[in-house]
Amino acid sequence: MSILVLGTLALDSLKTPCGERKNILGGSATHFSMAARLFTEVHLSAIIGEDFPKRNIDFLRKKDIILTSLVRGKGRSFRWQGEYKGDLNTAVTLNTELGVLTGFKPVLAGRQRGIRYVFLANIDPDIQRYLLERMCRVKLAGLDSMNYWIRNKRKSLVRLLKKIDIYLANEGEAKELSGEQNIVKAARALKKIGPAMVVIKKGEHGVLFYCDRFICSLPAYPVYTVVDPTGAGDTFAGGFMGYLARAGRISEGHIRKAIAYGVTCASFNLEGFGVSRTSRLTLTEVNRRLNELKKIVNF
Amino acid sequence: MSILVLGTLALDSLKTPCGERKNILGGSATHFSMAARLFTEVHLSAIIGEDFPKRNIDFLRKKDIILTSLVRGKGRSFRWQGEYKGDLNTAVTLNTELGVLTGFKPVLAGRQRGIRYVFLANIDPDIQRYLLERMCRVKLAGLDSMNYWIRNKRKSLVRLLKKIDIYLANEGEAKELSGEQNIVKAARALKKIGPAMVVIKKGEHGVLFYCDRFICSLPAYPVYTVVDPTGAGDTFAGGFMGYLARAGRISEGHIRKAIAYGVTCASFNLEGFGVSRTSRLTLTEVNRRLNELKKIVNF
Repeated sequence: MSILVLGTLALDSLKTPCGERKNILGGSATHFSMAARLFTEVHLSAIIGEDFPKRNIDFLRKKDIILTSLVRGKGRSFRWQGEYKGDLNTAVTLNTELGVLTGFKPVLAGRQRGIRYVFLANIDPDIQRYLLERMCRVKLAGLDSMNYWIRNKRKSLVRLLKKIDIYLANEGEAKELSGEQNIVKAARALKKIGPAMVVIKKGEHGVLFYCDRFICSLPAYPVYTVVDPTGAGDTFAGGFMGYLARAGRISEGHIRKAIAYGVTCASFNLEGFGVSRTSRLTLTEVNRRLNELKKIVNF
Repeated sequence: MSILVLGTLALDSLKTPCGERKNILGGSATHFSMAARLFTEVHLSAIIGEDFPKRNIDFLRKKDIILTSLVRGKGRSFRWQGEYKGDLNTAVTLNTELGVLTGFKPVLAGRQRGIRYVFLANIDPDIQRYLLERMCRVKLAGLDSMNYWIRNKRKSLVRLLKKIDIYLANEGEAKELSGEQNIVKAARALKKIGPAMVVIKKGEHGVLFYCDRFICSLPAYPVYTVVDPTGAGDTFAGGFMGYLARAGRISEGHIRKAIAYGVTCASFNLEGFGVSRTSRLTLTEVNRRLNELKKIVNF
C-alpha cells in the first residue's frame, strides 16, 4: 500500500569529522522517502521556497517520489546548519532558518486523502494535526517530533499523540516528554499518553519498541565510519513504516521485521553525506545487511 | 570446568533513588561469583581486612564459593561509597578506602594453579599479572579494569592485555584506552593491543562483542525498576565466563550464548541492592529470562 509522508525538504549545511557540505538536499521527508521508496509508493507533502534548486526536485522525481502535494511558497526554503563532533551522537545546531515553513498549510490531492499509511515527520504539531484531520481512511499513523515542540507546543503534541498509532522519539525526547529517566518506563509512560506503540530511537545504541503485548529491542548495525548521521532517525522511520505499508498488515511478526528494516536502513544513512548513500540503495543490499544483523543478535 | 576469579571483596555504602545501604557485601569478585556459581565451581582470590564480618564469609561459603585463597590482611577492609542519580548509568564515587588492598599479593593453593578458566576482575594490573603468571594451564583468561588504571598504570595494563584472551571494558574505558570515539572502531583497536576478543559493556544499552571472525551485539534485558546497578558489569562477566567454563569450549556458538547469559545475569543484578537478588538466583530463572531476551531480539 502507498504511504504519505508529511515533513520537511531542507537545504542542509553540515560539518562532520569526515568533511563539510553546503546546501545539500536534506529534511525529514527527504530522508524518510529514500528508505520508504524501497518498499512502497511514497507520496510526499512538504513546502519549498522560491530558491529551492530544480535539480533537487528532479532528483526526487527520479527516485519515484510522488510530488503532487509539494507546495512552493513565497520566500526562502527551510535551511538547517549543524555540526557533529566527537562521538557524532548529537548535532550542534548552528543555525535554523524556517523560511517558508512558517505558515505552511499542507494541500492534498483528492485521492491522497485515502492513503492508509501516514507518517508525520518532525514539523510543527499543528501542521501535523491539520494534515491528519484531512486523511479519511488511515490504518496506521506514525509521528516523530523534537524537543523544541515538546517544550513549546506540548499541549498540541500531547493532544495529537492521542490520535496516533506509533510515536517515534529519540531517547532525550522520550525522557523529556515522559519525565522518566528509565527508558523502558519512559516508553510505557508515552504509551499511556495515547499511541498504542512507542519506538525509542537510541542512535548508535539501536532502538526499543514498546507496546502492551510485547517489547522488541535491537542494537544498531555496527558501522565503522560514520560520515554523517543527519536524518538517520527519519531513515529508520522510512524503513520501518515503508515495510509495514508494503506488508499491509500490522502483526507482531511484521512489526519486529519492520524494526529490523528500520535499523538496517538507518545504518546505510550514516555512510554518506545527506542522502548520497540511501538514494543509491537497493532492497537487495538492505536484505543482505538485514541478514547480517540477524546473525549479530543471534544466540 | 572450574573458574578462578581474582578481585575484591568490599564493604559498599550505596545511595540510589531506591534507598540506601551501609557496609553491605560488594566488590568485583563477589558480584562475579554470584553469577558464575550458577554454571560452575568458583574459586575466589581476594583479600579482606580484620574488620570484615564473619557473616559475609559464611554467606559466600553457603553459596559454594571456594575460599581457600581468601587472605585476611592486617588493617581495614576495602570500602567503596557511591551514589547514583538520574538515569543510574554512572556512579558518583564519594569515597574509596583501599585498606588491605594496598600491598595485596594473591596466594594460590597448589591445585588452583591448574585451573583453566581465569577472570581477573578490576584490581591493580600488577596484581592481576602477578596472579596470571602463577597459573600454569590457562585456557581462557578474561580481564576487566577501570579508568583509574588506564590513567595511572597504562603501561602495566597494556602489557598485561597481550597475555589475555578476553578484555571486558565499559564504553568510557574502551574509548579512553583506544582513543576512538566510534565504539566498533574502539573494539577493533583494543583487539589490536593483544586480546583476541573484546567485550564492550554499555550498561542499559547492552553489550558489543568483537573478534576478527564475528561480531555479536545484544541490547540489555529491559528492567523497569533499577534498584542498584553496582556490580552489573562483574555480574555480566560472571555469567559470561561462567557459562564458557561450564561449556569447556570456546566456539562462536558458545560465545554468543555466553554473552546472552551475561546480559541476563546482569539484568537480575539491577533488581536488588548488592547481591541481594543475584545470591537468590537459580539457573531456571536465568534460563527463563534468557528465552525472553531471545524473543525480544527476534525478527
